[in-house]
Amino acid sequence: MANSKYEYVKAFEQPDLLLPNTWIVVRIDGRGFHKFSTKYNFEKPNDRRALDLMNAAAKAVMTELPDIVIAYGISDEYSFVFHKSCALFERRSSKLVTTIVSTFTAYYVHLWASFFPETPLSAPLPSFDGRAVHYPSVQNLRDYMSWRQVDCHINNLYNTAFWALIQIGGVDAKSAEKELSGSLAADKNEILFSRFKINYNNEPEIYKKGSVVLRDYELVEPGAAQELIDEDSLKTVDGVALSKTQEENDKKRRAKARITVQHVDIIKDEFWERRPWLLSNKPGKIPKEP
Amino acid sequence: MANSKYEYVKAFEQPDLLLPNTWIVVRIDGRGFHKFSTKYNFEKPNDRRALDLMNAAAKAVMTELPDIVIAYGISDEYSFVFHKSCALFERRSSKLVTTIVSTFTAYYVHLWASFFPETPLSAPLPSFDGRAVHYPSVQNLRDYMSWRQVDCHINNLYNTAFWALIQIGGVDAKSAEKELSGSLAADKNEILFSRFKINYNNEPEIYKKGSVVLRDYELVEPGAAQELIDEDSLKTVDGVALSKTQEENDKKRRAKARITVQHVDIIKDEFWERRPWLLSNKPGKIPKEP
Amino acid sequence: MANSKYEYVKAFEQPDLLLPNTWIVVRIDGRGFHKFSTKYNFEKPNDRRALDLMNAAAKAVMTELPDIVIAYGISDEYSFVFHKSCALFERRSSKLVTTIVSTFTAYYVHLWASFFPETPLSAPLPSFDGRAVHYPSVQNLRDYMSWRQVDCHINNLYNTAFWALIQIGGVDAKSAEKELSGSLAADKNEILFSRFKINYNNEPEIYKKGSVVLRDYELVEPGAAQELIDEDSLKTVDGVALSKTQEENDKKRRAKARITVQHVDIIKDEFWERRPWLLSNKPGKIPKEP
Amino acid sequence: MANSKYEYVKAFEQPDLLLPNTWIVVRIDGRGFHKFSTKYNFEKPNDRRALDLMNAAAKAVMTELPDIVIAYGISDEYSFVFHKSCALFERRSSKLVTTIVSTFTAYYVHLWASFFPETPLSAPLPSFDGRAVHYPSVQNLRDYMSWRQVDCHINNLYNTAFWALIQIGGVDAKSAEKELSGSLAADKNEILFSRFKINYNNEPEIYKKGSVVLRDYELVEPGAAQELIDEDSLKTVDGVALSKTQEENDKKRRAKARITVQHVDIIKDEFWERRPWLLSNKPGKIPKEP
Repeated sequence: MANSKYEYVKAFEQPDLLLPNTWIVVRIDGRGFHKFSTKYNFEKPNDRRALDLMNAAAKAVMTELPDIVIAYGISDEYSFVFHKSCALFERRSSKLVTTIVSTFTAYYVHLWASFFPETPLSAPLPSFDGRAVHYPSVQNLRDYMSWRQVDCHINNLYNTAFWALIQIGGVDAKSAEKELSGSLAADKNEILFSRFKINYNNEPEIYKKGSVVLRDYELVEPGAAQELIDEDSLKTVDGVALSKTQEENDKKRRAKARITVQHVDIIKDEFWERRPWLLSNKPGKIPKEP
Repeated sequence: MANSKYEYVKAFEQPDLLLPNTWIVVRIDGRGFHKFSTKYNFEKPNDRRALDLMNAAAKAVMTELPDIVIAYGISDEYSFVFHKSCALFERRSSKLVTTIVSTFTAYYVHLWASFFPETPLSAPLPSFDGRAVHYPSVQNLRDYMSWRQVDCHINNLYNTAFWALIQIGGVDAKSAEKELSGSLAADKNEILFSRFKINYNNEPEIYKKGSVVLRDYELVEPGAAQELIDEDSLKTVDGVALSKTQEENDKKRRAKARITVQHVDIIKDEFWERRPWLLSNKPGKIPKEP
Repeated sequence: MANSKYEYVKAFEQPDLLLPNTWIVVRIDGRGFHKFSTKYNFEKPNDRRALDLMNAAAKAVMTELPDIVIAYGISDEYSFVFHKSCALFERRSSKLVTTIVSTFTAYYVHLWASFFPETPLSAPLPSFDGRAVHYPSVQNLRDYMSWRQVDCHINNLYNTAFWALIQIGGVDAKSAEKELSGSLAADKNEILFSRFKINYNNEPEIYKKGSVVLRDYELVEPGAAQELIDEDSLKTVDGVALSKTQEENDKKRRAKARITVQHVDIIKDEFWERRPWLLSNKPGKIPKEP
Repeated sequence: MANSKYEYVKAFEQPDLLLPNTWIVVRIDGRGFHKFSTKYNFEKPNDRRALDLMNAAAKAVMTELPDIVIAYGISDEYSFVFHKSCALFERRSSKLVTTIVSTFTAYYVHLWASFFPETPLSAPLPSFDGRAVHYPSVQNLRDYMSWRQVDCHINNLYNTAFWALIQIGGVDAKSAEKELSGSLAADKNEILFSRFKINYNNEPEIYKKGSVVLRDYELVEPGAAQELIDEDSLKTVDGVALSKTQEENDKKRRAKARITVQHVDIIKDEFWERRPWLLSNKPGKIPKEP
């Protein structure tokens, strides 16, 4: 029985290639995580185990997909960045997004027991949705990353104040919300300090800055990275310059690099200048193990 | 710190709404499942536990997403069908696909231990990719489903003969491949019967027909379904006919229905005629529990 | 000098194929025709020469593109319909739209002098923009056509009353607008009849109904068209049924048919039932020239 | 009669916004111009009147659409470039493409009589199709432009040799084609020079270089343009820096600038360095009329 009679239905599959030479960001979000965090009694405003689980899943995704340059996570969301020269899956949007979403989910569920040993998962299970967005310039990409980190800061400051009012101040959610409504950052800092002796600056970096996942190459001295990020690595990749051998070597060096999670500022230039491999996509120097 | 400076990056998110009034199929596939099945010693040509796990995950997906009308699975792939009038997530392609992929993956990993209690999962974990395709007409949709079921048949007949040659006939993979190359269905049936006393018709239906997941309403007498599937349920939905109350009622009846896995022919008209709720999207009669 | 160094830029061209088995409508609109109609002193509320020129251009488009099944025009807009089985330009959206827009514009400019012999064109010249929309079902397509014809009616009734108030009633535009604001169709009919002795029903059909452009085959008796429009002409086309010879014959018969402009109701079933070739895409009988 | 019953069909219109912060190129091509050029006896290998008509139409397009930064034409094709910060028509692809195609066609038909006074147009009229492509980086854009100019050169050298063989050498088309098959640029130069005393370098620039259409601001000394093209004009545009007044001023200065057609090298850096307004989108200095 040949299948030719029905195969015409394949013609309905429409291509979804992302524009070449653009930075691809796949952002995933927990589905219904408000309810989910209640079900599993996540601590407020931040549950360290939940964040560590998110980070562990993100590390696993990055290990399985060496094309990912950097990832950034806050709360129940994670953004994964592919270099603009990335050719994985021919840059098919649905393939890139679903691979990341699926891999992330698999590790999240699989590793759950290590982080929440006393509360086994039950249906409905945690799940994530995702989407791909592409950005033409380095500035756009960095602004995207900055947008997420500023969001982390805004949300965390609010949540810290909100839960301090409730947990220490003893007010109910409605009153807390009302008190914070329209308040500026300075107001929230003041509430935390004067009423609860909390210096927001001393809060853990993971809550204030979110989590940055990257390959752990040697940092470069600021200003030392002489080469500008060239506008046009695409041409180089498509052209003669980058040999097959070179690509293979890069891949090996990438696979060897330790993947690390840091809680640092990614808005300032310094972060990107000291890690030129992020934007150049050329692997850095692997530091000697101490 | 307001976030307005960076928020412009949201403008790069492009809409991906699927055309209204079309049947949406989300097909997911196991990533690298050839290697995966070797790692976990799946039985050949079919591993019943692996198929049961796929089906359990598909049932869970359908339970969590009542908008799914029917699902069909073979090997490491599954197709989920949304009715043409479906408005879930505003019909955003990436949202529909990632939700299904993620939910499926979560249950696959979570339920693994129930089906493979003796071989715990280890990295790299199983994962799935997926895509959405939309079909304008009922005929196109049914042809899609037929295409998958014919594929199931072709592959299973081939694999059954291939592994019989190896497992019973004692030849190596290369010889088996060579022997089957260019052979017709009748030839493979003959090989199975004359050499190994295997009557392919007696093979388990789950292997020959794949797995159909649907809500278990009462079957309708063939020919009794008087109403034609109307070309234009969209208008009905958008218009006055279908009231909010009606929609709510439908949803409840859908949620109540038992989800069942069957291994039946979905190519012939009879399957669709006896289950008019599949194409009409109006819930059927829930049978009395025996 | 080979051109290979730069040819990579072709990879940035993204496909824009319209979904198979859907009805394609290309709608074009005059750009800035309010200003344009003032510049050339179009008569109000309708300028017969301007409409005749639109219709002449539409006929020319349909002559050059036999794949167009039907066209419908009102004011400075025109909709061209391709059958759902149409394969012209591989159904590339931009190619279909620009070809129609360009051909229409060419004839509009070229034929201008025949319709407005005393007012030659000068820069800025008339131009049109356009877009393609696709509809999965016959009902959707017919609803689209109905939408345009109802719009024609609503606009024309309003404009007829508006300009009667100004041209005969002697009020200014603001007062006319105010008087009609919030009025129902019956109110406008009443104004026209009681104040200006205009029976709207007696207005020319071209203004009330717009213009339908189609191939002039013999009408079929209502109810005589036994064959239902099959859901699935695509399969037929892709399959064996429709031979190359048949297709060639159809094309010839289509090219022979006279293209006619009519001002008739396209909302009621009768219009479509008596002209089964519109939805079946099978050429009708060419009537004997009298 | 309200139109709400049918208005749902508008939901089938799908958005087609081009990615922000990318260079938009709309390329249009003559439809069937091989046949068309035969019908109107275009001179071979180049018809100066036909090229001048193309250029006149392109100038008109650029006059009507001040957002166009530069245009480049060869033979029966023209490419129009919008700056990456362009917000015209919200960057809707079909609107941009059809507006250009329609405006170009209108002028081509309207101006025909000025360039071909002795051969009036008749049906089928000339028409053009078009498509939009977007490029993320300046390098990609320049490579696109270079690609077209190299193509111009390759085609023109070939055509010049081909028609010399036929028109002067007296061979037929087949023999000419055969002789040139596989030949290098040097070979064709040699044929032209040794057999026909034609020094290709002395051929008119318009044939060798194509036609560049741009606003005629004062050239800048090479190296004097201190400011780098910033990666990120989008942000500037969306942000505070570029005031409404500034934008208005820019528009006026752009409208005042004379549009000129030149036949120069656009591959080398010099062209772009001396005309910084092309990539910066900031109007240059308008030269004093002599």
